[in-house]
Amino acid sequence: MVSLHQKELRDLFTMALYLDPADGLVIEAERLRAWTDALVRRVGTPPDIAADVAELLLAADLRGIASHGTARLPQYLKLIEAGVVDPARRPVKEVGKTALARFNANNGWGHHSGRVATDDAIERARQTGTAISVLRNANHYGIAGWYAMRVARQGLIGLSLTNTSPIVAPTRARTSLLGTNPIAFAAPAGRFGMLVLDMATSTVPRGRIEVAARRGETIPVGWAIAPDGSPATTPELALEGALQPLGGSEETGGYKGYGLALLVEVLTGILGDAAFGPDFERRLERLLDQLTHAPCIPDAPGPVLYPGQPEAERAEKQAREGIVIDREHHDSLVALGERQGVAFPAARAIG
Amino acid sequence: MVSLHQKELRDLFTMALYLDPADGLVIEAERLRAWTDALVRRVGTPPDIAADVAELLLAADLRGIASHGTARLPQYLKLIEAGVVDPARRPVKEVGKTALARFNANNGWGHHSGRVATDDAIERARQTGTAISVLRNANHYGIAGWYAMRVARQGLIGLSLTNTSPIVAPTRARTSLLGTNPIAFAAPAGRFGMLVLDMATSTVPRGRIEVAARRGETIPVGWAIAPDGSPATTPELALEGALQPLGGSEETGGYKGYGLALLVEVLTGILGDAAFGPDFERRLERLLDQLTHAPCIPDAPGPVLYPGQPEAERAEKQAREGIVIDREHHDSLVALGERQGVAFPAARAIG
Repeated sequence: MVSLHQKELRDLFTMALYLDPADGLVIEAERLRAWTDALVRRVGTPPDIAADVAELLLAADLRGIASHGTARLPQYLKLIEAGVVDPARRPVKEVGKTALARFNANNGWGHHSGRVATDDAIERARQTGTAISVLRNANHYGIAGWYAMRVARQGLIGLSLTNTSPIVAPTRARTSLLGTNPIAFAAPAGRFGMLVLDMATSTVPRGRIEVAARRGETIPVGWAIAPDGSPATTPELALEGALQPLGGSEETGGYKGYGLALLVEVLTGILGDAAFGPDFERRLERLLDQLTHAPCIPDAPGPVLYPGQPEAERAEKQAREGIVIDREHHDSLVALGERQGVAFPAARAIG
Repeated sequence: MVSLHQKELRDLFTMALYLDPADGLVIEAERLRAWTDALVRRVGTPPDIAADVAELLLAADLRGIASHGTARLPQYLKLIEAGVVDPARRPVKEVGKTALARFNANNGWGHHSGRVATDDAIERARQTGTAISVLRNANHYGIAGWYAMRVARQGLIGLSLTNTSPIVAPTRARTSLLGTNPIAFAAPAGRFGMLVLDMATSTVPRGRIEVAARRGETIPVGWAIAPDGSPATTPELALEGALQPLGGSEETGGYKGYGLALLVEVLTGILGDAAFGPDFERRLERLLDQLTHAPCIPDAPGPVLYPGQPEAERAEKQAREGIVIDREHHDSLVALGERQGVAFPAARAIG
């Protein structure tokens, strides 16, 4: 097995978007599917696994998400040649309760292990009402939305999350520490067909900035930061820097996008690789250590925080020293107490 | 029972933030809790329910989220006097499989029914690995984060969602059709205590704009729109207009915040009130009808969309007429086919 460096892996998974195929070509969907299937089988993939891969890649191409469709085939085949992906390996269920199972995807095709784990969750959800599958050692699995849609086609509500390589800077940080970690959600919607949310938790994917570079456009504040941590307004600086989480800067709610990316990381990377129990917390500690020690952007009002940190610190202080309430708030409670005959206790002025 | 109009209800639930209590007072947490408990019992709340209410409100005050703490008591008591909230009613489990149960909260205190439903889910999750409780006829339940934290204290991962009154405009729309619909997530984090994300899916809460008004500040683009749908840069225009979803405008990813608000609406309002099955889709259809027919902002590139709509339309068209691929994408597949001995099928130029 050949090991790829992080940088090479990142480049392998940083895809062109092909937003405007002006000089494009048209190919019949079924012919593209058949060719994809044949190609994938040719490199050692069993037929049932190849069918899953072709289905997922065609679904992306059909929906106009070229970055996650057949355009990835050259990369996938490089990963197989490098021994990173074993095209014939199958996922194995390792541990599981009725509504929560973990699979080891054994570094096979992510599209196949994702489909198998999804179908397993659908079967269990019919019994219990809800079910989750978590995968470890899974490779790139295509568009997250496909799995959620597969669930919704069964009359259920589907949710699919995955972590990805780190190209997003947490709020206040100058360096990439989180992936674009998508959230996909689908529900059956009667004559509207299906509600399908399939969103990266960054403002835009990296490929969108490459498109801006090709078009010679500037980019809006909120998409990315330059290597020095300042807002990037040219695609060139953005591509050398890091993507920003959904919401952009701290002032416009970027810490929420950061929080969502972390939510996805916890439910996929941390939960998938951790034995249930204490190992989970050790892994989360290591991640929070990395985040809170990251180098900061120039105008950061303080170090990188983890979600809940300021509130927990304030709760501890106020439990010890008393709760500070606004005078208007205070006076409204005093009046309420008088009206109800439950006298409000004495409070002291600040300081 | 006295019924309140939508407008009155909205005003009742539009709370001051008390971000900077400069003229503030300090009160010992335990005294504030005891007083809250006594006051809530005085208006007809059984002791065990009052204890839940006091616990939730104090948790918000301690964490510095005054808008969801004891400052809400005057409003809650008005709702009880109006007969909207019945302080003595208890939640009842209506239907349920092992991992998915629905409760009717019977318009009692939301804090109590939320706690009961959370504890029920914790018990079931110990058996099955995962469990969900959905509530209907529930009232305001305080900070969503408290429920997620209660789960995390048991060594599990907690998620709590709720819909709220509509004060957020979907992307491209000029009118408020969705709530600030929060997402709360908590996980045990070893020596970091707990990871707690507790975020509205709007860029900011309405109270943050009231703070800007009191301070005489302008507000950044991305927080809100004016009544005519243009970006609001003064708090006065914003308060007459609507909040924007996380991400702000369409260009900076606001449609993702809109999608997240909708995700929350589907999993709470739609799922909670719908009998399982076809009724769910009828209710979702009605919501999507409202959204897609909303009046638009001046520079909207088209009507309000629902998540997945453009991708579904493109997939249908390309399944019929063929998939358009970029020439670079095409050429890379031709080369790959040659190398692997699987000839790429003929494609035709666009047009």
